[in-house]
Amino acid sequence: MTQQQSKLYQHGTLATLVPGLFAGTMKLGEILKNGDTGIGTATGLGGEMIVLDGRPYLVKSTGEIDVLPAETMVPFATVHYADHDLPATVVHDLDEAHLGDVVFDKRALKNIFFAVQITGKFSHVKTRAVAAQERPYPPLSAVADQQAIFTEEDSQGTLVGYFSPELFQGMAAAGFHLHYLNDTHTMGGHVLDFTVSEGQLTLQPFSSVEQHFPVDNEEFMAHDFDLGQMDAKIKHSES
Amino acid sequence: MTQQQSKLYQHGTLATLVPGLFAGTMKLGEILKNGDTGIGTATGLGGEMIVLDGRPYLVKSTGEIDVLPAETMVPFATVHYADHDLPATVVHDLDEAHLGDVVFDKRALKNIFFAVQITGKFSHVKTRAVAAQERPYPPLSAVADQQAIFTEEDSQGTLVGYFSPELFQGMAAAGFHLHYLNDTHTMGGHVLDFTVSEGQLTLQPFSSVEQHFPVDNEEFMAHDFDLGQMDAKIKHSES
Repeated sequence: MTQQQSKLYQHGTLATLVPGLFAGTMKLGEILKNGDTGIGTATGLGGEMIVLDGRPYLVKSTGEIDVLPAETMVPFATVHYADHDLPATVVHDLDEAHLGDVVFDKRALKNIFFAVQITGKFSHVKTRAVAAQERPYPPLSAVADQQAIFTEEDSQGTLVGYFSPELFQGMAAAGFHLHYLNDTHTMGGHVLDFTVSEGQLTLQPFSSVEQHFPVDNEEFMAHDFDLGQMDAKIKHSES
Repeated sequence: MTQQQSKLYQHGTLATLVPGLFAGTMKLGEILKNGDTGIGTATGLGGEMIVLDGRPYLVKSTGEIDVLPAETMVPFATVHYADHDLPATVVHDLDEAHLGDVVFDKRALKNIFFAVQITGKFSHVKTRAVAAQERPYPPLSAVADQQAIFTEEDSQGTLVGYFSPELFQGMAAAGFHLHYLNDTHTMGGHVLDFTVSEGQLTLQPFSSVEQHFPVDNEEFMAHDFDLGQMDAKIKHSES
């Protein structure tokens, strides 16, 4: 693993989205200088972003899936350079509820950030995509209540995302945060549930996480964040 | 400001120290490849570290101040490359209680990490240094209760440290976390109180913070952190 592959890069924090700061604050092209794989969103929470092999897809609440241009402004995204030399574990009939059992069974990883990738045949995938918002932006919890839900049976695809340690709740979503895209690029989004019938699971642990802040965005810099209900609000919005 | 000067680097988290994981997990020489200025501690909480112009000093609870060798193992340290081109503000009769007023009066900085440096004449400085611990290590709160307290009137010296946003409580100490060293290297430590009679205040905001984890330390990787009382425990230990 190179030093580059051992670092996770994040622009923006999840906490910034909670009160409704959805304006894009960094160009996607700049973000993708820090990784070829990852997840995120776009200005106004325009949908669920998934980055695979350097290509950024946006799953919109209409069900359309766009490839995003480099000029797209992004308020929150997490990316890394995938290490293709990592060993994969073959998994059968693994569902969302048992992912943690498989991941933590053999390795103590819960105190660090790591990437999760599952490629293969999915007997069931359930996703959501938030609807694009206009100013004045509502809080994240209100947006989560308006999300579109998609399901697909027997698809071939890729699930990508991250595990974040409990200590970093608010910077990211503590626990697993996973997005999906099928191989025909016709269905995807923020994963609510899945069962992979036969697939390859890869974990990529990071020794470092680089958190980048939108320091030139006055709205972010001046905002008075209320962290009192952060944990409950994130759990409501992200699960 | 160069890209390097706009990044804060931290090895270990404050949360790791709270239950008593005081073993050094990274060589100081490696840490100092990421900055020439900063604060930290040493294995077993051997004292209060302050890094100035690339030289790492350790203020011990005995009052002795050592220059640490590069091989010293460190569980927690935060460093950056000081930008000497930043403008300084002249401050008069500024005390610890009013530092926040002066810092936040003109600039919205509370949502990002930034470095604070004050050089000049201090009419009063009160510091503490924790006592070196042996295994089995006690929790951090028990160590804080055994600290040595030092005071000095009318010294010339340098105060260095960081402001961390509230969201990152546990990764770092939210708010200001400052260490001091006088110019004769005879008094210093973790700052509890100060009054600078005449000095130069410099703030260095960071667009990124890189959090590095002790991924090869089994004790850290396997530890079951209880974050329930983290905020209260940090406030007890760090103020």
